[in-house]
Amino acid sequence: MGIPRLQKVRTFAFGVQGEKNLPCNDKYIIVYDFSEAETDEAIKEFSTLLEDVKSVGLHTEVRAGYNQTLLVFVQAPRELLGNTVYRSRVKDWLYGITKQHPGGNRDTVVDGDFEAEDILSMYHLVNWRKELGGAGITPEFGKWKNVKSIFPLHNISANEDLLYHLSKKLLLSAEDLDRIRDLWGAKVAFYFAFLQTYFVFLIIPCVAGIFAWQFLPQYSLSFAFIIGFWCTVFLEYWKIQETDLSIRWKVRGVGGLKVNRPQFQYEKEFVDAAGRVQQFFPRWKQIARQSVVIPFVLLSLLLLGILIVVVFAIEIYISEAYEGPYKFYLEYLPTVLLAILLPYIGNTLEDIASTMTEFENHRTQDNYEMSLTQKIFVLNSITNYLPILLTAFVYVPFGDILVPQLQNNLHKTFGASIGKFDFKSDADRLRNEVIALTVTGQISNLGEELVFPYLKTRFREWWREHQAKNADADNLLEDDPSETKTLKRARKQALLSPYNVQDDISEMVIQFGYLALFSPVWPLIPIGFLINNWIELRSDFLKICIEHQRPTPVRGDGIGPWITSLEALTWLGSVSSAAIVHLFGQHHYAMGIMQTTMGKWCSLPLTIFVSEHIFLAFRAAVRFSLQKIGSRQIRKERNERYAERKKYLDELESSTTKSGHLDVVERERRKSVRMTSEDVFWTRQAEEGVSNEVGIGLIRAAKQKEEQGRGITKVD
Amino acid sequence: MGIPRLQKVRTFAFGVQGEKNLPCNDKYIIVYDFSEAETDEAIKEFSTLLEDVKSVGLHTEVRAGYNQTLLVFVQAPRELLGNTVYRSRVKDWLYGITKQHPGGNRDTVVDGDFEAEDILSMYHLVNWRKELGGAGITPEFGKWKNVKSIFPLHNISANEDLLYHLSKKLLLSAEDLDRIRDLWGAKVAFYFAFLQTYFVFLIIPCVAGIFAWQFLPQYSLSFAFIIGFWCTVFLEYWKIQETDLSIRWKVRGVGGLKVNRPQFQYEKEFVDAAGRVQQFFPRWKQIARQSVVIPFVLLSLLLLGILIVVVFAIEIYISEAYEGPYKFYLEYLPTVLLAILLPYIGNTLEDIASTMTEFENHRTQDNYEMSLTQKIFVLNSITNYLPILLTAFVYVPFGDILVPQLQNNLHKTFGASIGKFDFKSDADRLRNEVIALTVTGQISNLGEELVFPYLKTRFREWWREHQAKNADADNLLEDDPSETKTLKRARKQALLSPYNVQDDISEMVIQFGYLALFSPVWPLIPIGFLINNWIELRSDFLKICIEHQRPTPVRGDGIGPWITSLEALTWLGSVSSAAIVHLFGQHHYAMGIMQTTMGKWCSLPLTIFVSEHIFLAFRAAVRFSLQKIGSRQIRKERNERYAERKKYLDELESSTTKSGHLDVVERERRKSVRMTSEDVFWTRQAEEGVSNEVGIGLIRAAKQKEEQGRGITKVD
Repeated sequence: MGIPRLQKVRTFAFGVQGEKNLPCNDKYIIVYDFSEAETDEAIKEFSTLLEDVKSVGLHTEVRAGYNQTLLVFVQAPRELLGNTVYRSRVKDWLYGITKQHPGGNRDTVVDGDFEAEDILSMYHLVNWRKELGGAGITPEFGKWKNVKSIFPLHNISANEDLLYHLSKKLLLSAEDLDRIRDLWGAKVAFYFAFLQTYFVFLIIPCVAGIFAWQFLPQYSLSFAFIIGFWCTVFLEYWKIQETDLSIRWKVRGVGGLKVNRPQFQYEKEFVDAAGRVQQFFPRWKQIARQSVVIPFVLLSLLLLGILIVVVFAIEIYISEAYEGPYKFYLEYLPTVLLAILLPYIGNTLEDIASTMTEFENHRTQDNYEMSLTQKIFVLNSITNYLPILLTAFVYVPFGDILVPQLQNNLHKTFGASIGKFDFKSDADRLRNEVIALTVTGQISNLGEELVFPYLKTRFREWWREHQAKNADADNLLEDDPSETKTLKRARKQALLSPYNVQDDISEMVIQFGYLALFSPVWPLIPIGFLINNWIELRSDFLKICIEHQRPTPVRGDGIGPWITSLEALTWLGSVSSAAIVHLFGQHHYAMGIMQTTMGKWCSLPLTIFVSEHIFLAFRAAVRFSLQKIGSRQIRKERNERYAERKKYLDELESSTTKSGHLDVVERERRKSVRMTSEDVFWTRQAEEGVSNEVGIGLIRAAKQKEEQGRGITKVD
Repeated sequence: MGIPRLQKVRTFAFGVQGEKNLPCNDKYIIVYDFSEAETDEAIKEFSTLLEDVKSVGLHTEVRAGYNQTLLVFVQAPRELLGNTVYRSRVKDWLYGITKQHPGGNRDTVVDGDFEAEDILSMYHLVNWRKELGGAGITPEFGKWKNVKSIFPLHNISANEDLLYHLSKKLLLSAEDLDRIRDLWGAKVAFYFAFLQTYFVFLIIPCVAGIFAWQFLPQYSLSFAFIIGFWCTVFLEYWKIQETDLSIRWKVRGVGGLKVNRPQFQYEKEFVDAAGRVQQFFPRWKQIARQSVVIPFVLLSLLLLGILIVVVFAIEIYISEAYEGPYKFYLEYLPTVLLAILLPYIGNTLEDIASTMTEFENHRTQDNYEMSLTQKIFVLNSITNYLPILLTAFVYVPFGDILVPQLQNNLHKTFGASIGKFDFKSDADRLRNEVIALTVTGQISNLGEELVFPYLKTRFREWWREHQAKNADADNLLEDDPSETKTLKRARKQALLSPYNVQDDISEMVIQFGYLALFSPVWPLIPIGFLINNWIELRSDFLKICIEHQRPTPVRGDGIGPWITSLEALTWLGSVSSAAIVHLFGQHHYAMGIMQTTMGKWCSLPLTIFVSEHIFLAFRAAVRFSLQKIGSRQIRKERNERYAERKKYLDELESSTTKSGHLDVVERERRKSVRMTSEDVFWTRQAEEGVSNEVGIGLIRAAKQKEEQGRGITKVD
């Protein structure tokens, strides 16, 4: 892409090019929506809002937004922000995140090391409870239900620069990830780090896949093993990488210092041993509430499962066995059914999941987020993987039996209008389905993520401008000309949705699952993933820039419980891919029993058993070796600690004079003082060299005696 | 036991009662054996020995020992020992074991907090290489091959007191374990801590076992599950307990500061980034050497396996199918065979294991020890468990087929002298074998550990005194009367063998394995273990006191890799006990296919699969919950760190004055100075209350407009 074209893209994407921007690191925007409130109520709420914000020491500027909203621009004076950042660093030190006190005293004002540090403190000033020193504005909760969102302004020039920089590179370096962290905080940066590592590692399955596709038979066992081993090594490597990055970004263990959600219902407050005010909710109650998730998972598994099975059956029947009228239209029926029902049921289940997660009463926002995303991940897995699993383990093996039965039943029910014919299950269906899902799925994801919302945003803009031309000049939006661009940008950003990094991580994990679970089906899967992920990293970056509000730069020390999901997928993969190879592969070496279907199914548990244990043994071996090698940053940390403490020891080591012998004076002293019997023992040979003589004497005497003894016996 | 009798035991066991003992914390004994050296050679070696010892600053006294040995009593002056202990504490701080520098400077002299701390420093002074400040005396290595051992003196009164104290108590407390640590160091104390925890936890399987024996059917599935869950919970609890104790005893992470073994062959030395001299041996070479263990394990498995199978077959045949002459004598043949061959083969394999471990070139003594004990543990497992596994999975199921075949073969080979008769495999054999092995095995272990060596020691003593009476007065042992008792005690201790804690831990782990692997066979197994372990703890204590030299009080932060062995046994147990229940139990609910032997074996993999996964899921759940609860000591550590750092923060928090509004002066300043456009934005509503008014105005205007709009449409 030549430079001129890229510039055009930048203008197209980012709007105003090259204009001077407000510094973004000390500002926040509160979107107050008064469309659903009565005038007096709105005025009262609004006044309270400004009061709360001002009471923290923040400055405000109010402008109008679109659609009966007010944009409250909040700014922190230099001293307030600098002091808040400083206190945050002290808190880090208190909780052991950093090793050294940052110096200074309670009134110190510091500059943020990077923009996100300042913005995070701004967020705290706006969002934290009054007891913690914030203004207490939590959007859409409690008395602020009319506050639609709070967000920082995008740093457009920095965004542009970084995107441009990333687009030119093939691989990201640690410094590039640092720059992402500087903009959007550690939590978002970890997603990009994970995506980058995953992308680099994907080269191996690509190479292996090309090799397998070319030279190995279909459904190859060796390829399944390679992918299984690759998944394990990748995960273990990522864990070390995560630790390294968390130490580099000084966020290791940061989960321990997060404040409580305002939605957290506690039973009592108490002051703990270290003087901190803790809010207490009984652990057993929390566990009891969390165990509600188990029936929920089973229920949704059932519901989604039944839906997918039914649609699946309809689809099979219509596409392969049906010969009656309207076949052409009916072929689309299942897809339509799924397209209608699945999102509806999916959303209902997600709402139930939200309510349940709320019920679980998590203390911190991190925990809440994680619990919710894990539930949604389970739902997504079912939706994504169940069709393929059905194809692999129900349709292809048993289709020959089931579909004619289905045909018979329908024939009896619906009469002669449904024809009959011989049915042979299509063994290639599995491969075609996997290819379709992974390839087209990736492309449609990309479109859905990027293209569709972009068009939507642009359309809305166009509609708004169209409306504005036709209607009377909206005096609410009479802006001072010098502010127009700034306000336009802020208003646009106010309409965007907040960014949720968990959705993107979820997408990557689902993709990883395809590779882990179904790798033997089509070895070229990884190539599509590789290409997609290179684009994905940059397109996600672009997406955050233009389709979402700037994310609150919260900190995290990794991608969290997704590691467990990845491990679970790898484990399931060892079972699933072994089963696929077993059922579908050509086993030239297995004779007799394996050739019959019955034999195949009988020996399947054994194959799964063996494959799973090979995987577990390999995983234990990888963990053992990598644990010894360990994390480079951790070793560096330990060495630093040693080195800085060593200077104390140096003066010890330089002392070389050790007393070789009892000083003459000391010896005499010991002998002359009246001593107890123990001490007498220790003075008999106190003189130098006496021990030596005594010992030599004893040796000689003993040897002589021995020779005498031998001599006597010899004579005998 | 009344007090007078216990006193008698004390006298009997410990010999001299109530005599004043030499303080033991600053003395070490080197046993120099010159029986295999020529006189001149011996004299030269001995002189070098004394020279090396004296060069460190230690004092010596030489006395004769039994059987052409010299006992070199080594003592450290107060200043030397105190300074060495101090430097050891500084080293702990350097390596991050303790959090605070111990204060003082390079010449500081401290008292050991407990006796073992002093003795450990004595050991370092005698044993460490010259570069590290020691005398370099490593028994039976290099130039000191004639030094048979080095050991500290037993603190007999402390031993007596503690044993008496332990015998009166049912359960040990943390303070009791502290006292053991004070005597013998952390590594040995961890064994007692593990034994104690294991003992306490055994109450649960005992209760469950009585219940199962009384009310549940034989080979009960529920009981197998209970034991499986118990094993998991016990292990996870012990891990937390280990961490707690390691923090309490300030040995956490102590593995990182151990010095290199003198036997460690390194390729080069270099100075690392922190200024420490490191000895380097390529990692890949080390891993390559260690991988030799795999064929070794397979080979020994084969060898021992064949031996056990052959003997087993002979035993079955003779005891149940043989009807020919000499049956009475031949019945003992297998036992005799095993008793002869097994120790021989076992010792050969152990020697091979020793050589291999030496070849593996471990850097520290801990690593070497661990590698060796794990190999020997594998050998012991095979020897202990294989017979039972054979009975359970070969003999009982297939005996009906195999033994008559065996009978036929032997009949053809040996002619008509061997009779034939119908054979029915004895299903109770499994239970009888397990009972025999666990009950009698425990009792014989006890006897072997305690009674036999004690009798041996006493016999040798009697023999020596008998010889002394008959022979000429041995002028070598002409002792000064005031020293007689001390020397006699020291000479006796010099003849004892060193204590290896790994043997005792191994015994407990093997016992645990019986419970984990074969619990459904006889539910009352745990009761025997419970009783045995209470006695074992105290008898092992006694054993160390009277049958072994005082152990070098090395430090460790747990029982080491035995945790992995225990986890492996628990895992195997989930498979093995499920298989036993499946094959032997009465399955009233399973009809048809399960009743046939073929059916049983076909469905066995499925049962194992299910059982194993239930176990793994449960283990993951336990780890997850306990991880949240975590180690109490770790939490205490974190709270302490927080509290001690909090005083810095207190002065921050006490600052309550925050600026509520822009100072008037500040406001005017901001407006008057020439500003850029950004700043102008922020001054429009700088006056107090202006933002409020502007916002209210906007709200009213918007609401009015809305009503106008609605009003117009209504009219329409």
